[in-house]
Amino acid sequence: MSTAVSGSSASGAGAVTTGPIEGSTKHYVAVPGEPGMSVPVRRVHLTTGEHHDLYDTSGPYTESDVVVDLAAGLPALRAGWPRHPGTQLAAARAGVVTPEMRYCAAREGVPAETVRAEVAAGRAVIPANHRHPELEPMVIGKAFGVKVNANIGNSAVTSSIAEEVDKMVWATRWGADTVMDLSTGPRIHETREWILRNSPVPVGTVPIYQAVEQAGGDPAALTWEMYRDTVIEQCEQGVDYMTVHAGVLLRHIPLTAHRVTGIVSRGGAIMAAWCLAHHRESFLYTHFAELCEILQRYDVTISLGDGLRPGSVADANDAAQFAELRTLGELTRVAKSHGVQVLIEGPGHVPMHLIEENVRLEEELCEEAPFYTLGPLTTDIAPAYDHITSAIGAAMIARAGTAMLCYVTPKEHLGLPDRDDVKTGVIAYRIAAHAADLAKGHPRARERDDALSRARFEFRWHDQFALSLDPDTARAFHDETLPAEPAKKAHFCSMCGPKFCSMRISADVRAGLAGKAAEFAGAGGQVYVPIESVGSQP
Amino acid sequence: MSTAVSGSSASGAGAVTTGPIEGSTKHYVAVPGEPGMSVPVRRVHLTTGEHHDLYDTSGPYTESDVVVDLAAGLPALRAGWPRHPGTQLAAARAGVVTPEMRYCAAREGVPAETVRAEVAAGRAVIPANHRHPELEPMVIGKAFGVKVNANIGNSAVTSSIAEEVDKMVWATRWGADTVMDLSTGPRIHETREWILRNSPVPVGTVPIYQAVEQAGGDPAALTWEMYRDTVIEQCEQGVDYMTVHAGVLLRHIPLTAHRVTGIVSRGGAIMAAWCLAHHRESFLYTHFAELCEILQRYDVTISLGDGLRPGSVADANDAAQFAELRTLGELTRVAKSHGVQVLIEGPGHVPMHLIEENVRLEEELCEEAPFYTLGPLTTDIAPAYDHITSAIGAAMIARAGTAMLCYVTPKEHLGLPDRDDVKTGVIAYRIAAHAADLAKGHPRARERDDALSRARFEFRWHDQFALSLDPDTARAFHDETLPAEPAKKAHFCSMCGPKFCSMRISADVRAGLAGKAAEFAGAGGQVYVPIESVGSQP
Repeated sequence: MSTAVSGSSASGAGAVTTGPIEGSTKHYVAVPGEPGMSVPVRRVHLTTGEHHDLYDTSGPYTESDVVVDLAAGLPALRAGWPRHPGTQLAAARAGVVTPEMRYCAAREGVPAETVRAEVAAGRAVIPANHRHPELEPMVIGKAFGVKVNANIGNSAVTSSIAEEVDKMVWATRWGADTVMDLSTGPRIHETREWILRNSPVPVGTVPIYQAVEQAGGDPAALTWEMYRDTVIEQCEQGVDYMTVHAGVLLRHIPLTAHRVTGIVSRGGAIMAAWCLAHHRESFLYTHFAELCEILQRYDVTISLGDGLRPGSVADANDAAQFAELRTLGELTRVAKSHGVQVLIEGPGHVPMHLIEENVRLEEELCEEAPFYTLGPLTTDIAPAYDHITSAIGAAMIARAGTAMLCYVTPKEHLGLPDRDDVKTGVIAYRIAAHAADLAKGHPRARERDDALSRARFEFRWHDQFALSLDPDTARAFHDETLPAEPAKKAHFCSMCGPKFCSMRISADVRAGLAGKAAEFAGAGGQVYVPIESVGSQP
Repeated sequence: MSTAVSGSSASGAGAVTTGPIEGSTKHYVAVPGEPGMSVPVRRVHLTTGEHHDLYDTSGPYTESDVVVDLAAGLPALRAGWPRHPGTQLAAARAGVVTPEMRYCAAREGVPAETVRAEVAAGRAVIPANHRHPELEPMVIGKAFGVKVNANIGNSAVTSSIAEEVDKMVWATRWGADTVMDLSTGPRIHETREWILRNSPVPVGTVPIYQAVEQAGGDPAALTWEMYRDTVIEQCEQGVDYMTVHAGVLLRHIPLTAHRVTGIVSRGGAIMAAWCLAHHRESFLYTHFAELCEILQRYDVTISLGDGLRPGSVADANDAAQFAELRTLGELTRVAKSHGVQVLIEGPGHVPMHLIEENVRLEEELCEEAPFYTLGPLTTDIAPAYDHITSAIGAAMIARAGTAMLCYVTPKEHLGLPDRDDVKTGVIAYRIAAHAADLAKGHPRARERDDALSRARFEFRWHDQFALSLDPDTARAFHDETLPAEPAKKAHFCSMCGPKFCSMRISADVRAGLAGKAAEFAGAGGQVYVPIESVGSQP
């Protein structure tokens, strides 16, 4: 791992983390039938001589000898691709398999026709603005691997553009499939430009934040025209998907009056304030068709925001939440009639027994448009550990059919996530997504678990680290007690100690079963004496 | 928080953490109908003047002015209690409500008769060796709050007796309901003595570890007599429950031959090695009735170990695992016929879609004896994060009916957990247990979430911290960006910044709804401008 310094740190960009993840190298695998097209993989090199290819979200930054120039941005991968005049949805409906569909299919290991069919049905989306050519296309839908989004965005107070570009690269290094730039403040346009030009993954935004700034910070002063102009500006820049809280209607607001935590979505709160101040229907709702015409021209995917999501288990699955969801279903049909690809955002805070109902209703009301949920957090009582309270809910809701999970970091509810929090959040969510892929029987998911477990049973420590979600930390934990290189081949770890490893005894048992019973019995001394067992399991 | 130094650190005991958890004080609530009996609670004092009592596992160590003398041990709480001649199970079947049942009922907030009925049915156990009078009795069963066990135990290489006593106190401070002492090495008896005399929670062990030591470390040299004498020694000391791997039969061993990770239970591997070396049936199985007669005399609860639990998702729910479970069902009936209370241990590594089947089969085969599971880990690919991979499975299996969860720390598979790992493991498992209690509709669970969420919505930061599982870390995360005391009353945090908090806007909206629409509209300036949003959610 190293850092590449931008050619123009003066302009605000600084250094980002580059180089391969330990134990693996970046490879590009050719796509059959697509001359010149290849898709990235993280190739794990095993000590057995075999290799294991993993889905790779990290872009060129993990190449071995990459030279990064943040000022120049990433190469325009899609520049030369033939483009269908309409959106991916329009193409799919017309029976056209686009290069983006072939690229996504190759990454997922499925036939391109499967991607086309899912996109045509509105069960999957490929967020890929025509003006974001640097993008490595990816598909979001329940027929494919569960995806993870990481929120970044600068703070006028504590963060610079360089830090946010670094956070984007850092988040995708550990497995973020998309990033949302929630930047605000004076340099919002410039920050977004740096992130877009250097992002290999789809970038999402919430345009209302910038629009409110243009309204002098007063939601009541917002107008449709201000919002529309902001959306066009962001479409022109290349934003791939936008969260729009068009489901917060005037009549929904009183339904939040007696909630424990009211309205916890910032976009939702802004629109509720606007509706109430003017006692008029949301301009996002009344101008929704016009908005769709704009998004359609760039193939920007609309992510229908859940402005009334529950912010506590007490408010989960309540009248306000489901009233908005019904409205999102209505808007889904309008957006798709314009050829716009649609994501539906979901909660929030939801106790385990109420999670599946969210997926069932979303699929019923929103024509199975890909569900994109924040967690959900399964309890409110663990601030500082909400990456865990929500990883539980995220794994369950993904298993039930959610296509993409928005991460939650340990700082949720408490403060600004730093670089370490971003990594912790991404890893916790890759765990939730992978656990769901396993439960759904995703063809490739089990291969990685089995490869790692075989390495574990055969004491191939380097392979176990290399196949893990975070080789650096796995190795560091092992090194805390056994730093020497020989320990990386040893038939034990410090958990049970050198003389009492169940897997070692189990290997002896297996040898015994292999007809060597007598020899084994004579070699009883090889079944070691326990001397260490702190924290080990009975 | 402070530390109390033992009166005899020379004898091996050192200092332990004492004093109340931030924002709360230790109280003892009188038990109606039991003169002189009171149960401990963590009383959280809210800034509203109200207080909120929480279940408390921490013993006298969290009293404000506690004086701890580790050499003397804790007061013998149960010394004066009338004792039924038999076990809690025998008493319950005879219709007798013991003091222990009343104590547990008061802690759980249920009628004593409910505890008696569940114990009589074998659906709950109260691990309470007659010779562990320092114990604050607790009940384990699916009708009650989900419990958490923490494994401790010294290492000849890296840990002292003092460190293990401190780990026990530390684990119970953060919510461990029981601890298992997995100590090995030369000072195993002395270490266990220090832990037992100072433990307010039930202490469990795995006697086979000590027995193998007496057999010179060679499983093949083990005899029933060696094992029996070890069990009697531990019963005399006051161990409350013991893991016995009596379900690993000779005929089961070949079923593990083609597993990806073989046998991963240390006790299971030892017994498999013994059976194979002698080509005889397990002495734990052939002498099981005699073992039960010993345990019955002390009312030691037997925890039937899952020696053949899966160590990888590939091996989950396989023939070996379920063959052993059927044998555990048979042994459950034998143990209960001797009046012995029974726990059943469960896996391990299990993907989400195979979790519920484990609970269904356990209840069917083992007469609903309380299920006690390790995790399960829902994927194998995240070494260094297995507290998270397993918290997902633990929450799901507890919701399905598991009564107690054995924690997993971030060091699982990699090395020795330290003090921080113990705390992280306990908190992750308290999250899983509480999420399950919420999903099961446990009457008290929701109260804490609602109290914390009300504090959150009203910006009562001190109350939010005090009601959380880990006030120290929640406060520390908040202080990283807003250390000043006034920020503890501020209507924002650094996540969304001072001028753009959805909950603040939501409060304005609520004010607007409260008939102040005009005033609200005029006060648009009070609906703040966004300047910070790093990591905040759309």
